[in-house]
Amino acid sequence: MARPDPEKTACTIIIGNEILSGRVQDQNLTYIAERLNDYGVRLREARVIPDHEDAIIEAINECRKVFDYVLTTGGIGPTHDDITAECVAKAFGVPLEINEEAAEAMGVSSGDPRRNAARLRMARIPVGANLIKNAISAAPGFQMENVFVMAGVPSVAQAMVDALRSRLAGGVPVSSRGIVAHVSEGAVAASLTAIQERFPDTDIGSYPFYRSGRFGTTLVVRSTNTERIDAAVEEIKSMIREMGAEPEEETRVG
Amino acid sequence: MARPDPEKTACTIIIGNEILSGRVQDQNLTYIAERLNDYGVRLREARVIPDHEDAIIEAINECRKVFDYVLTTGGIGPTHDDITAECVAKAFGVPLEINEEAAEAMGVSSGDPRRNAARLRMARIPVGANLIKNAISAAPGFQMENVFVMAGVPSVAQAMVDALRSRLAGGVPVSSRGIVAHVSEGAVAASLTAIQERFPDTDIGSYPFYRSGRFGTTLVVRSTNTERIDAAVEEIKSMIREMGAEPEEETRVG
Repeated sequence: MARPDPEKTACTIIIGNEILSGRVQDQNLTYIAERLNDYGVRLREARVIPDHEDAIIEAINECRKVFDYVLTTGGIGPTHDDITAECVAKAFGVPLEINEEAAEAMGVSSGDPRRNAARLRMARIPVGANLIKNAISAAPGFQMENVFVMAGVPSVAQAMVDALRSRLAGGVPVSSRGIVAHVSEGAVAASLTAIQERFPDTDIGSYPFYRSGRFGTTLVVRSTNTERIDAAVEEIKSMIREMGAEPEEETRVG
Repeated sequence: MARPDPEKTACTIIIGNEILSGRVQDQNLTYIAERLNDYGVRLREARVIPDHEDAIIEAINECRKVFDYVLTTGGIGPTHDDITAECVAKAFGVPLEINEEAAEAMGVSSGDPRRNAARLRMARIPVGANLIKNAISAAPGFQMENVFVMAGVPSVAQAMVDALRSRLAGGVPVSSRGIVAHVSEGAVAASLTAIQERFPDTDIGSYPFYRSGRFGTTLVVRSTNTERIDAAVEEIKSMIREMGAEPEEETRVG
């Protein structure tokens, strides 16, 4: 909406042919979005791009200039299609080197007989980056300036974004409430516009659904100011009751 | 991969604050990706952007120059936060007008007493666009040059992308086979690189998983040439058996 937003912004770059081919459904974006809300950071865009060097370098260089934070998922494993680390190094114009702290985290420190090429591939980190701890499967992610490079496997990606809380300095968290009603979007449109105009410091969204054989609409109010959310929700509930329907609080609050 | 690709390319733009806030998980991308595979069109990128005029216009104008086809979802309903149609009109520099064909599809032709502002809002279409049929809930999408504007509600978005088969001229469909094995990515990395090098006309992807308490890897071979897929899969199966594990065909084929 038109509301000015002085807060920190973020973009997520999801790297993976498997998402673009439709073979795998992304499971990380929703979790990242929720954590960023908690941190007071606004997720402003997400991109899904292929495991292709030019595409990765271009997306990273474009997004790191526009957003305060860029979070990537995918492409940091040990196989030939895992090229994210080398692309980040190229995007920043720095070398990619074996990072002994990363090797140690994976239990393949210098001199260890398990120090094979596949494991070492995951210890190659752009020079100047700080590691992001992987509490699940050891191989770390890394932070290069405002770019945070995380794994694609959901349990690992989630652990990594949890580990970023202290590094992603944000502002006031955005709260929200959702109201569900068996009314059509068309029926609420005019009254809802009037409510949005009276509450310009909130974002009011309208999402139609079809569940259990019935059409309905979920109305979501988001803001950094919970009192204003509550006031707008009361007006929305009154509007719905005037239409002869019963508003219900959405149980899911994100 | 390095394989040159003369095929038609596409980008999907998912318009919706509800996805970026983590409140709703996108359910359209996987379906669109699969249908585009069927049509022989390569989905090269997807973007999730907010319901914000500047963001929508910028994304549409950037992507329509880069990709053969741009498919958008979301923001064509009757409420104040549905601004996609007016943004597409602005992106193309054409007026947005009540389209009588769209009004008729919604049963609110000129003179009809149900012709209210909310319904008419959904009949506002950029001048010069062709409608995309909505077999589910009547309100149509539209095509403006190479940009295809579809609804966000999954059942409607799916019906619309189904309706685009004849308009999205593609090439040879991409086929794929997936092999699942309880081996680690690190263990297969070196042999898999060698197989990828012997089959440069295929894309071989490696995806680690953790299911039912066991780690494993899914190896996916994609190509327009099914004979080459089958030959690469045989080599992958041999590699897995040599490691003492048993390869299984993935039932999901996308």
